Amino acid sequence: MQDFKRIKAFAFDVDGVFTDGGVLCDTAGELYRTFDAKDGFAIRMATMHGYPVAIITGGRSKSITARFSTCGVPEADVYLKSRVKADDLQDFCNRHGIGADEVMFIGDDLPDIEPLELCGLAICPADAVEEVKAVCDIVSPFPGGKGCIRKAVEDVMKAQDTWTFDSARYKKLF
Amino acid sequence: MQDFKRIKAFAFDVDGVFTDGGVLCDTAGELYRTFDAKDGFAIRMATMHGYPVAIITGGRSKSITARFSTCGVPEADVYLKSRVKADDLQDFCNRHGIGADEVMFIGDDLPDIEPLELCGLAICPADAVEEVKAVCDIVSPFPGGKGCIRKAVEDVMKAQDTWTFDSARYKKLF
Amino acid sequence: MQDFKRIKAFAFDVDGVFTDGGVLCDTAGELYRTFDAKDGFAIRMATMHGYPVAIITGGRSKSITARFSTCGVPEADVYLKSRVKADDLQDFCNRHGIGADEVMFIGDDLPDIEPLELCGLAICPADAVEEVKAVCDIVSPFPGGKGCIRKAVEDVMKAQDTWTFDSARYKKLF
Amino acid sequence: MQDFKRIKAFAFDVDGVFTDGGVLCDTAGELYRTFDAKDGFAIRMATMHGYPVAIITGGRSKSITARFSTCGVPEADVYLKSRVKADDLQDFCNRHGIGADEVMFIGDDLPDIEPLELCGLAICPADAVEEVKAVCDIVSPFPGGKGCIRKAVEDVMKAQDTWTFDSARYKKLF
Repeated sequence: MQDFKRIKAFAFDVDGVFTDGGVLCDTAGELYRTFDAKDGFAIRMATMHGYPVAIITGGRSKSITARFSTCGVPEADVYLKSRVKADDLQDFCNRHGIGADEVMFIGDDLPDIEPLELCGLAICPADAVEEVKAVCDIVSPFPGGKGCIRKAVEDVMKAQDTWTFDSARYKKLF
Repeated sequence: MQDFKRIKAFAFDVDGVFTDGGVLCDTAGELYRTFDAKDGFAIRMATMHGYPVAIITGGRSKSITARFSTCGVPEADVYLKSRVKADDLQDFCNRHGIGADEVMFIGDDLPDIEPLELCGLAICPADAVEEVKAVCDIVSPFPGGKGCIRKAVEDVMKAQDTWTFDSARYKKLF
Repeated sequence: MQDFKRIKAFAFDVDGVFTDGGVLCDTAGELYRTFDAKDGFAIRMATMHGYPVAIITGGRSKSITARFSTCGVPEADVYLKSRVKADDLQDFCNRHGIGADEVMFIGDDLPDIEPLELCGLAICPADAVEEVKAVCDIVSPFPGGKGCIRKAVEDVMKAQDTWTFDSARYKKLF
Repeated sequence: MQDFKRIKAFAFDVDGVFTDGGVLCDTAGELYRTFDAKDGFAIRMATMHGYPVAIITGGRSKSITARFSTCGVPEADVYLKSRVKADDLQDFCNRHGIGADEVMFIGDDLPDIEPLELCGLAICPADAVEEVKAVCDIVSPFPGGKGCIRKAVEDVMKAQDTWTFDSARYKKLF
């Protein structure tokens, strides 16, 4: 609970976290992902209540930027083709004037280990690789793409009494 | 059973109800959904037998209107980008001259709570969020996209002896 | 076994049989389906060994014709937008000079009941609707899109000793 | 373990191995596949550490070549429309100067039996057909598209102490 209360921002890997890891490939090699509507609503709740949200992914598709744009995440906070993820997490923190120890990060594979070790609250989905589970504070009961984002964001916001929904305000913002 | 018998119209959220919550995102941010053929057949059965059907969704894609058009739902009854869903449900009722208490509504997330409280028969899929389950008359044994629509529509129509199929008439209408 | 031995042709519904029922909808209302590679191989095995194969579906997308064309099913044997399916099954039988009692049919929903009652061997996937299960000779242990086609075709062809694969001949034909 | 240590290259079928067998079909008959991000990372780890990787598939879509290109597999090592797969496996071995007994091959259906019998370490996913399981050294605990590639590549590379990740080097190569 103490961990949940000090969190001021959220940062996430994409594949295997917002998704079940599936990437649909077209003939040009462009990859398309299937996101979850309940996760998307959680990100809207977070941005609606003023939390900065970062997307730090090895993926390069503009579809990722487009997806999170509709959830209130500005393009500047979406790091595509991230290779050294801890550097990008630090950049996000610097730009928003917060400490890495005030950020919750969710990741599932080897390139996420460095940012998971850097952040204040490290979470992974139930189907993350073993090396990632070993460095996380919390292993979600849910696998990637099936509730791990929603639960983690809800847990933090409920601990801070910010998980409140107002349809009139929602209409104004989205 | 009594609840099933007084229903004169159906209204539905889309994501997490007609689908498992998955939204496939293209590079322009357009979202594509995977619907279920058995649910689609249930909507055709409903419109074929004269029940008004409303789609009330936060989604904005024309693919939603297109999908339900082939099931006999006119564009006027598809509410895209709905933010205050109870208002849209009331509008649907006014236009069709029915009371909200004569409508069955199925939804799964926070924006659906207001219309679920307004309607006559409130149903949610097995994987709805807890706050939604708490306000529903029935929690379906099936999750979103996997039978909850089909079962609910069938239950109402069977209670009213309208779940009858005639291939010659089907040919004429669709 | 006796049933398997008299079968001379195969006929199938598509949604919920070759697929899990999912239809991906684009902005124009065109529907895209996800087929299974092992089922596709079974259809190739059937056409490679000379069995006529019919596709009898309520769907209207040319993607269905295109899919089965690569499996050796000629366009004439793909019945799109079928509404009275028993009529189309009878037409297929007439054109190929076989009796309906020599055809195996797999379907899963109400429009499939008439052809299932007409054919010689009626099979449905594990997740067919109850009314369909009631008229079938065999309820597959596998649900739609997950092995029911492959198993049924294999069972018939193994009973007739035609489930044999020759990579050189495969290369010549496909 | 001894088997894992002598492996110098990897070769794979695609459908039912890198995927759950699903192929999404468009109106022109082009097939699109959903790959897994964790499998993709494993292929990058393999090519990053110098292992030749072959893709030997009956599929004909350029999306397959495009997908593996981003994982470091050159076009010359992607065999599309492969019908006699053992011939293509032998060609791959000849071009790279390795013996077929130094290659790990993963396949799941009848056309894979010949290359599985030719290679040095034959593996299949948990949901391969029975005839394939019968000729494999290892039946993976994971089905196609859900971890069988990742585990097999990791097992070989860990046995050879090459499963090591360096984010700075990753940045340089991909």
